[in-house]
Amino acid sequence: MTHPNPAFSPEEYAARLARVRSAMEHAGLDCLFITDPSNMGWLTGYDGWSFYVHQGVLVGPDVPPRWWGRTMDGAGALRTVWMPDDHIHGYDDSFVQNPVKHPMLDLCGLVRACGWDTRRIGIEKDNYYFTAAAYETLLTGLPQAAMIDATGLVNWCRALKSPTEITYLRRAGAIVTRMHAHIAEVAEEGMRKNDLVAQIMATGIEGADGHWGDYPAIVPMAPSGRDATAPHLTWDDSPLTRGVPTFFEIAGAYRRYQCPQSRTLFLGEVPDTYRRAEAAVGEATEAVLGMAQPGVRCEDLARVFNGTLAAHGFHKDSRVGYSIGMSYPPDWGERTMSLRAGDTTTLQAGMTFHFMPALWLDDGGIEITEPILITDRGAERLCATPPGLVVKA
Amino acid sequence: MTHPNPAFSPEEYAARLARVRSAMEHAGLDCLFITDPSNMGWLTGYDGWSFYVHQGVLVGPDVPPRWWGRTMDGAGALRTVWMPDDHIHGYDDSFVQNPVKHPMLDLCGLVRACGWDTRRIGIEKDNYYFTAAAYETLLTGLPQAAMIDATGLVNWCRALKSPTEITYLRRAGAIVTRMHAHIAEVAEEGMRKNDLVAQIMATGIEGADGHWGDYPAIVPMAPSGRDATAPHLTWDDSPLTRGVPTFFEIAGAYRRYQCPQSRTLFLGEVPDTYRRAEAAVGEATEAVLGMAQPGVRCEDLARVFNGTLAAHGFHKDSRVGYSIGMSYPPDWGERTMSLRAGDTTTLQAGMTFHFMPALWLDDGGIEITEPILITDRGAERLCATPPGLVVKA
Repeated sequence: MTHPNPAFSPEEYAARLARVRSAMEHAGLDCLFITDPSNMGWLTGYDGWSFYVHQGVLVGPDVPPRWWGRTMDGAGALRTVWMPDDHIHGYDDSFVQNPVKHPMLDLCGLVRACGWDTRRIGIEKDNYYFTAAAYETLLTGLPQAAMIDATGLVNWCRALKSPTEITYLRRAGAIVTRMHAHIAEVAEEGMRKNDLVAQIMATGIEGADGHWGDYPAIVPMAPSGRDATAPHLTWDDSPLTRGVPTFFEIAGAYRRYQCPQSRTLFLGEVPDTYRRAEAAVGEATEAVLGMAQPGVRCEDLARVFNGTLAAHGFHKDSRVGYSIGMSYPPDWGERTMSLRAGDTTTLQAGMTFHFMPALWLDDGGIEITEPILITDRGAERLCATPPGLVVKA
Repeated sequence: MTHPNPAFSPEEYAARLARVRSAMEHAGLDCLFITDPSNMGWLTGYDGWSFYVHQGVLVGPDVPPRWWGRTMDGAGALRTVWMPDDHIHGYDDSFVQNPVKHPMLDLCGLVRACGWDTRRIGIEKDNYYFTAAAYETLLTGLPQAAMIDATGLVNWCRALKSPTEITYLRRAGAIVTRMHAHIAEVAEEGMRKNDLVAQIMATGIEGADGHWGDYPAIVPMAPSGRDATAPHLTWDDSPLTRGVPTFFEIAGAYRRYQCPQSRTLFLGEVPDTYRRAEAAVGEATEAVLGMAQPGVRCEDLARVFNGTLAAHGFHKDSRVGYSIGMSYPPDWGERTMSLRAGDTTTLQAGMTFHFMPALWLDDGGIEITEPILITDRGAERLCATPPGLVVKA
């Protein structure tokens, strides 16, 4: 069955598969079993919230990949993937969340049927959706196979974005721009945080410029005051109050492409520390964006950022950004490049990052971040959100 | 540091820990490392969207549990868990998504510091957030320890809900009731699906009866027509049209407690097949809810349901429900009991289920479901949503 409105052309999917097969050959793999939903989606078009059960895509040296999962989700695969219907394999529902019947037993049968049970099989050992039990079941069920870690193999194939992917990321960028504009417009003292988050989520799903919004791979993180010393708290019903920062770490999403961006809101007077932090982050951001171009390394960006920040008396322990693209929960990053010391990856045109210079201070946090595209002419912002703190009297 | 507004009393957390330690003793475990975010939250109060990096809770035979995770998330733990501050252990940011430095190396150090590196350690081998790589790193780093599968051990401790938990589930039930009422009110021909989903999400996060809404562990699934032959598709911008079913599988959430419920919408005339399916599901649901009481087994409910359905000429291959409670993405179920053949668990008062008699037909799907609480007097609905199809002229 063909998707009525596929996200990408057959030629683009064919090019992706060729890129993956080339990476497999380079890694000495005969076949590859991927479970990262974003890798599954990028390679096959599959899209559904079914990753709470075991599923994956099996890629061999020839013939189209095989989608494998719960039988009821095979119906979703039929409606979303580009491969022929007989490349969709479903396992019986009695395997679902059943401690005495692991679904990977069924996958072992499929691997044997393909004649790959004595081959070198790549697996994503450190992916959320490939558990220790899944691994043990494969090891026991396929004793003749060599299981090779291929975590990140497909993710790295995704690092350079195609023109269509860049279009989708720009649409996601327009969505998150609209979300931040909405916060700046409606936030006011006394407003319950959850009521504001409700509007943020709705704005994102409505979309922007006529393009519908998909779900972000992480829900809004919106802590205030001392809660904002911690990066990943979500929300409750406490009212927005004057004089404390609230940061909004949110993403726009278009057809699973994720464009995260953060801004920090103050109602009323901004304390001096935060004005100084804003200036430091702003200057460091300009320094980084001014140098981000093909040939520069990820760690160079981190060094320049941290150096500029240090000159202003601030300090950041964590990475200052990461690669972005297509993603599913629980992470909107691409899990390849990090902007930090030791990451020597060289930037190329077509890479996309969330440049994420968040500072968590003693009494709150400040997040003013930029999703960017690397082009031959330097870094291009994917969002039109104004820089700096969002201050409302 | 103490949470300013903890979800549960110190006594309730103490009782939970005692229940877990008793289960550990029964399973012959000296200590337990849990990574399921809902188990972490239930046992310690920890709440944050940080499960995209490796983290967990380490429970020993005495002293309070230890929270372990990324250093920046330790700040969130400081603000949410009941344990003393020195029971929060953070690892350096360079361990994050770094293929040459797995975070579990740091956990091995903590286990050794506790003197547990020669003990019997329970691990959640089939949890999303315990990868094959995490397991291998622990096996290598703690060669003297015995690693025992404890998947579901804490989840089973959660099966019987406390009065406060039941209050939270009822609040979540009131939220999803309001979400379904909103759909019935605003859905109309030509409305873009994403605009409707935006309103559904916003309604859920606004909450109900003065109680704020948390994020559901799964986003709304809302397929129409032939897409509704598949259970887990989400949405796009296609307009609602007359004469085809759209089901809305959604959840209300209150402080991470999840109350899922589904309804199916028709605009205009309902085809005969769907009226017959509605009658069959309705009768089978009444039969099941009428018999669901302490002493009955999970599989008994499935048998009665499937028998009643068969008498009407319908058939369902998959389980007809599962246990619910506290949850985080990617699953709003509790991953213990399933209402299906072979599950011989006996119902007890205080258990909660999503009774989920969905039918996927050749040309669409019908989902009319009920979250329920088992009481000494039988099954009690957690929602006030009217039964049956939602039909708008």
